[in-house]
Parts: sequence; C-alpha cells; structure tokens
Amino acid sequence: MDNWLPTLVTATPSEGYDLAVKLARIAVKKTQPDADERERMRPDYAGDADALIAVSQVVATNFATIAAANDYWRAGA
Amino acid sequence: MDNWLPTLVTATPSEGYDLAVKLARIAVKKTQPDADERERMRPDYAGDADALIAVSQVVATNFATIAAANDYWRAGA
Amino acid sequence: MDNWLPTLVTATPSEGYDLAVKLARIAVKKTQPDADERERMRPDYAGDADALIAVSQVVATNFATIAAANDYWRAGA
Amino acid sequence: MDNWLPTLVTATPSEGYDLAVKLARIAVKKTQPDADERERMRPDYAGDADALIAVSQVVATNFATIAAANDYWRAGA
Amino acid sequence: MDNWLPTLVTATPSEGYDLAVKLARIAVKKTQPDADERERMRPDYAGDADALIAVSQVVATNFATIAAANDYWRAGA
Amino acid sequence: MDNWLPTLVTATPSEGYDLAVKLARIAVKKTQPDADERERMRPDYAGDADALIAVSQVVATNFATIAAANDYWRAGA
Repeated sequence: MDNWLPTLVTATPSEGYDLAVKLARIAVKKTQPDADERERMRPDYAGDADALIAVSQVVATNFATIAAANDYWRAGA
Repeated sequence: MDNWLPTLVTATPSEGYDLAVKLARIAVKKTQPDADERERMRPDYAGDADALIAVSQVVATNFATIAAANDYWRAGA
Repeated sequence: MDNWLPTLVTATPSEGYDLAVKLARIAVKKTQPDADERERMRPDYAGDADALIAVSQVVATNFATIAAANDYWRAGA
Repeated sequence: MDNWLPTLVTATPSEGYDLAVKLARIAVKKTQPDADERERMRPDYAGDADALIAVSQVVATNFATIAAANDYWRAGA
Repeated sequence: MDNWLPTLVTATPSEGYDLAVKLARIAVKKTQPDADERERMRPDYAGDADALIAVSQVVATNFATIAAANDYWRAGA
Repeated sequence: MDNWLPTLVTATPSEGYDLAVKLARIAVKKTQPDADERERMRPDYAGDADALIAVSQVVATNFATIAAANDYWRAGA
C-alpha cells in the first residue's frame, strides 16, 4: 500500500466518485487490517440501513475533496 | 453504471438538489448492490425519523459540492 | 416541486437560514413522500434532544452552502 | 424572529463563536417551537456526554461558516 | 470568558490542533456550564470508543477552520 | 508531543491520507491520554462496523484539510 493514491485527478465525476468510495474503505482497512475480520462484519453494515447511510456520508465527504481537486471537472470530460 | 455521472453542472439549484439526492443513493448501491436487499430495508429508514435526518445530512453534504461546482448558480437560471 | 429552489440568493442571513431549514426538510420529503407518515414521526424528533441536535447539524451544513452562495452577505442587507 | 440575524460579521473570534452557538440553538427552536418542551429536554442533553459532543459538532460547523464570513478575523480585532 | 479567543492564528499546525481541541471543549462548557457535572461525565466519554471517535470528529471540523485561517501554515513555521 | 505536526505538506496523496489517519488518532490521545485504556478499547471499534465507519468519517474530514493544504497535489508527485 506504498503509493496506492498517486493522484486525486480523475477523468470524469463518475471515476471521482469511485475514488471517494475507495478512500472510505481505506480508512477502515488501516484501522482493521485483518481482511477476515472485515469480511465477517460485512453483513453488519450491508444489511443495515443506518450503516449504509453512514457509509454514504463518508463517501460524500471524500467526494467533496476529490471534486475540488478536479476543479469540479468543469473543463469537461 | 459506467459513466452515470457525466457532469456536476445542472441548470437550476432544484436540479442540483436532485443530483445530490441521487449521489447519496449511489453510495448505498455500491455498498449493497442487491436491489432486493435495499428494497427490504426501505421501511427501516423511510419510517424512522433518525434515519431520515441522517439521509438529509448526506444530501446536504453532496449539495454543498454540487452548489460549488455550479458556482452557486449565481449567473442565473 | 418542479422548480422549488430557483435561487440560493437571499436578502439577509436570516432568510438564508430559513432556506437552510427548508432544504433540510426537502431531503426528508424526497425520501418519505407520504405526508401522513412524516406527520406521524413528528413527535419522534420534536420531543427528542438527540434528533433535534441532528436536525441542527443538517441545517448548519445547508447554511454553510447558502452563506457561501451569498458571499456571506458581506455587501450588507 | 423576523431579522434575528442581520449579519455574520463579528468583532472577534470569541463573538463569532457565540454566534455559532446561537445558530445551533435556532435550528432547534424552529423545529420545536414550544419553549416548555425544549426546557423539559434540557437534562436529556446537558447531562449526556454524547449529546454534548453532538452539540459541539454543530457549533463547529456553524463556526466554520462564521469564520469564513469574517475572513478569519485576519485583519485583527 | 469574555475574549477567550482573541485570534485563530497559531505559530504551528501543532498549536492549531491544540486550539481545535480547545474549541471543541468550549461548546460543551457553554451548553453544560457546571464543572462538576462535566467532570462526572468524563468516564462516559473517556472510556467509550464511540464517544472518543465523535470527539475526534469535532476536533477535525475545528481544525479545518483553524488551518484555513492560518493559510495552512504554508509560509513555514 | 511538543511539535508533533510541523507541517501539513506531504509529498503524495497517499502520505497525506496517512497523516489524516494520524490526526484522527491524536484527538483520541488528547482526550484519553492513558495508553492502556486506549488499548483496552481497541476491540470495541476494530470489530464494530459502525465504529469503523465513524473512524473513516473523521479521516475523510482530516483528509479534506490536508488535501487543501497541499493544493490537492496538483503540481504532481
């Protein structure tokens, strides 16, 4: 995981959103490095409305950063 | 879902707000791809005040990004 | 609800704050379109300190957007 | 409560912070207009660590807006 | 507590972070002015992982404001 | 912990993200200085999906600050 995030620049907003999802997951991995443990917890959030909304909140915060980094893709895709 | 978000630009603040709602839902879909599962959870949040407030928080965060991307629609609709 | 939000510009910070409250409510309406259901839930949040604080958080986030859109009403009311 | 917020400009950061606290309370008043009800709930949050932290979060969000409005009081008090 | 916050400017990011922690505590003090009550609640959050994460969230929000006020200390310490 | 944060500037987004994680932990340390207590709580959040999502939210907020401080690493790594 040395340089897993070389840039915040993406070609399109869609790709920027995917990167926001990825960033949200990285923080979880860094706090709980055990992949089996994370897999065990998957049903805890994938089947829980409150947890899914909370995930969406994290993604929204990351997307704000990535969108700013890309100057909101105003120059066009 | 390849290029589902070609641009953050919308004609009006109302359309920008709708896009913010859409973004909030996309993160949920990407975390819980099973449509039946999501449908099953609908009453969990649609009938729960706390969950609805949390949804509103996610939308507010996304709307901030979209509003900035549109320079707050200052140029007029 | 076609163009319910024609502009983010308001004459005063007070009106901007009212708009922030309105935005917070719109996300709830779009997620739970049934007015009777929403009315049924009113005591759940209007009488619950945690829910009221959460509402205040959503309003604060929306107010940040609206304040920026109005350049913080620096030009005077 | 017509024009209760004529400006976001304050003389000092301290006053700006007080205004942030005020803003946090206004959203609560607008959602629960009954003063007796609000007074009844006071022990629910004033004696609860989680609620106090949540209040602090709302104040932090409002303070960010007010600080930006005052250009972070860089010009000096 | 008249002018307890004369400026948001600090010499280093470390000091800025300390100020962010202080801001987070002030909101709590203003909502619960009784020092004994606050002391009584200390174990409720100092020994609770969820509360500590919530505190960290408030500090992060305040730090964003202070960092912007200091132009991210780009000019060097 | 005198000058533990000399700068917000990092060479790459990856390092900036690591710094965001570090900032999230510092607030916890400052609120709960007892290392044994913090270690005791580790399973409370490392094995709890909701807590991990909340950690990810704090990291996202800190990353936004650090990304802005680095002008989003637009100049290249």
